[in-house]
Amino acid sequence: MKRDALALEDLSTIADAIAARRISSVEATEACLARIESWQPRTNAFLRLHKDKALTQAKTLDSELAAGKRRGPLHGVPMAHKDMYYRKGEISTGGSGIRREWRAPVTATVLQKLDAAGVVELGFLNMAEFAAGPTGHNVHHGHCRNPWDGTRVTGGSSSGSGSAVAARMVYGALGSDTGGSIRLPAAACGVVGMKATYGRVSRAGAVARSWSLDHVGPLTRTVRDNARLLAVLAGHDANDSTSSQKAVPDYEALLDGGVSSLKIGLALPDDGPAALDAQIGAAVQAAADALGRIGAKISAVTLPDFTALYRAAEVMVKCEAAAMHRPWLEKQPEAYANQVRTRMEAGFFIPATQYIDALRLRAHFVAEFLATMDGLDAVLLPAIPFPIPTIEETDVEAKGGPATLSMVGRFTGLTRPFNTLGVPALSVPCGFDSNGLPIGLQLVGRPFDEALLYRIGHAYQGVTDHHRRVPA
Amino acid sequence: MKRDALALEDLSTIADAIAARRISSVEATEACLARIESWQPRTNAFLRLHKDKALTQAKTLDSELAAGKRRGPLHGVPMAHKDMYYRKGEISTGGSGIRREWRAPVTATVLQKLDAAGVVELGFLNMAEFAAGPTGHNVHHGHCRNPWDGTRVTGGSSSGSGSAVAARMVYGALGSDTGGSIRLPAAACGVVGMKATYGRVSRAGAVARSWSLDHVGPLTRTVRDNARLLAVLAGHDANDSTSSQKAVPDYEALLDGGVSSLKIGLALPDDGPAALDAQIGAAVQAAADALGRIGAKISAVTLPDFTALYRAAEVMVKCEAAAMHRPWLEKQPEAYANQVRTRMEAGFFIPATQYIDALRLRAHFVAEFLATMDGLDAVLLPAIPFPIPTIEETDVEAKGGPATLSMVGRFTGLTRPFNTLGVPALSVPCGFDSNGLPIGLQLVGRPFDEALLYRIGHAYQGVTDHHRRVPA
Repeated sequence: MKRDALALEDLSTIADAIAARRISSVEATEACLARIESWQPRTNAFLRLHKDKALTQAKTLDSELAAGKRRGPLHGVPMAHKDMYYRKGEISTGGSGIRREWRAPVTATVLQKLDAAGVVELGFLNMAEFAAGPTGHNVHHGHCRNPWDGTRVTGGSSSGSGSAVAARMVYGALGSDTGGSIRLPAAACGVVGMKATYGRVSRAGAVARSWSLDHVGPLTRTVRDNARLLAVLAGHDANDSTSSQKAVPDYEALLDGGVSSLKIGLALPDDGPAALDAQIGAAVQAAADALGRIGAKISAVTLPDFTALYRAAEVMVKCEAAAMHRPWLEKQPEAYANQVRTRMEAGFFIPATQYIDALRLRAHFVAEFLATMDGLDAVLLPAIPFPIPTIEETDVEAKGGPATLSMVGRFTGLTRPFNTLGVPALSVPCGFDSNGLPIGLQLVGRPFDEALLYRIGHAYQGVTDHHRRVPA
Repeated sequence: MKRDALALEDLSTIADAIAARRISSVEATEACLARIESWQPRTNAFLRLHKDKALTQAKTLDSELAAGKRRGPLHGVPMAHKDMYYRKGEISTGGSGIRREWRAPVTATVLQKLDAAGVVELGFLNMAEFAAGPTGHNVHHGHCRNPWDGTRVTGGSSSGSGSAVAARMVYGALGSDTGGSIRLPAAACGVVGMKATYGRVSRAGAVARSWSLDHVGPLTRTVRDNARLLAVLAGHDANDSTSSQKAVPDYEALLDGGVSSLKIGLALPDDGPAALDAQIGAAVQAAADALGRIGAKISAVTLPDFTALYRAAEVMVKCEAAAMHRPWLEKQPEAYANQVRTRMEAGFFIPATQYIDALRLRAHFVAEFLATMDGLDAVLLPAIPFPIPTIEETDVEAKGGPATLSMVGRFTGLTRPFNTLGVPALSVPCGFDSNGLPIGLQLVGRPFDEALLYRIGHAYQGVTDHHRRVPA
């Protein structure tokens, strides 16, 4: 394969080609490095590129394979990750200015798992400051740009992960999702993002935004890639007390079940803060129609009113972030972007009983949501309710103002509820808006139903090709 | 056996005698009922006695045994429990006035386990209002009285459990412990009380005081009885997300290991709020000497300064209680005892970040405590640092005043730390003070080291007879 063609292949295809020794890890790594060279100036997706280290790693992995040793299902595959996963002794900024030169004392569990699976690490990716922000703005390291249109946002907070995967600079990337931070950049950049069930993936060694709502997960080009990655990442970890003991299914082996036996609810909110732009609604309706044509039973469903749940989530995030950031907020408040700091500081004024109430309401919200899902296998809805805006019009730090804040606030209207509920939610590309920017559909399931969501997403990608388009 | 002699036997002896059909469950139940008839007026330990129901239950259990069916290790043994364990459809007051007539919607997991083990339920026992109070005072249902001296407190909040077991009205009782509420009445009444590791026993269907600190556990006459009971109570419960998956050892089978290989640290605080009265210190020193004579290596140990830990625990209790009680506190504040209400209301004024900090500090406190235990198998210290006071001199509701409040506050100085730490702590009688009231020693271990604490306590009871004395 030619170098650029190589970069355009999926993670699974590349992993299999390396395993079969049709291509080398060094070739795949060089293909990514070439893409990065041309796309990094347009996107600012990378915060740190470890070119030499990655090539050395790739060479080692090639030698191992030549000697008959395959580390795991991702042997030789280049990836890069949101800059909040610790690698011992290396810089980890968390997208902040405060930790610009800080070095991590441990290696994140998920990075250890990727190491064991044989991944080549190209470097670390842009993100919102301390994962606080749904757009991809970053005053410390520069805004991340959408590869489909450099004037538009990537979605956040895993901005670099969405941008780098979409621009084919990497075959996959770790993101994290507290209110939509995997699914929003996946949707805005036209890639696949999974926020699995709360507790499915360890958060040990990752910067926390709000431990009650944080989820770690992968962004990839296809559903198959995502399934392969999640199988590597998921599982119990003694270093994360919230991680589940539940066995991890072979997600990839379960992809081909089809949708003909499935009942899927279609939720198209028509009012409130998550009210849909017409073209978003049309794209998601078309996706439902496509699933209907291959046998899924589609029916309209009205989701519960998420207003209280959304407020509860805000209380959790504000309080937990304020508690974690207190030492810095007290000593160097000027080191934060104003908007990031003021949102955190709000947490100092929330009484403990309100925080406790927010946590305790979750059981009620989950029961209510699962009742809505009665008779359904999954729920289909948009990821972002409006077309992807520009960086300029959503720049709360530079512009402020209630209109800008309100637009930014609306980003998470359809994603944040599933963090509070802890249920799995998968974002899959389902078309392009009139500006040529991607549209994302979201598939939501019951706790630990990741395999089912992947099965639906994979069936959908089998009859559509939105995920095959590449930004030019 | 004569009826009164029967009531004086241990739970294990009675359970084995019933199993061997040397006595019947009805005989054991009648023996307890006779004790209750003479001791209830002196102690007010029972809130509700289910005489007929208990006798019917005993008859059924006797018939089952005659037919060759033994339900479990406690078949036919009469017990009664702190009035905060729900039994579906039955009144459960939680020691409060508010729930005087309230009926429980579910049955507590621990009661289901006792049912399955074959226990006869004599009724429900006095307790502090909503488990808030270390003395045994109760303005709604009358104070509970110490069987060794009716003018003195029982310790709380499991006042009735301590009193009823000590007066031989029941062979064992459930208590609960948020800051010492099993160990304090065990110590003050001269019985054995175990607060096991956090998560060891399910709290589902029990009134919560502070879910971060609440522990369910048994009060009994001997360590052997306690070990047998805990083996029935412990284990994972899907209805309590904090309950541990760890396998439950056969505690009773592990009792006879002796102490000759063990290193035990002796902690005798000599200043601060937990500074010891001389006769308490002497009794605990004598207990350590007794263990030393049978082979344990005793060395002095200085526990960490628990001041910050104690404050953190207060923050947790106040915030969690305030959140739970808010609806009642707002609508019927007059239904609480003043002291109970004002302590809860303080929780409304604590910021969420302080609550979160308190929770997050636990890991630090645990590490610090385990470092103190380095090279030791267990730590020995008193349960209550002073002789058991009178009901009158500790009546904060009637008397108030800083001196009374301070004395009551000192009750939990040596017990509450182990709730915050989540480590197991066993209280065992170790003598009598100059007023003839019991003195309790406390054995503290590493997480899930209950078997070890029982082994030490059992060895100690093998060479002492404090636990054999019966109030007259």
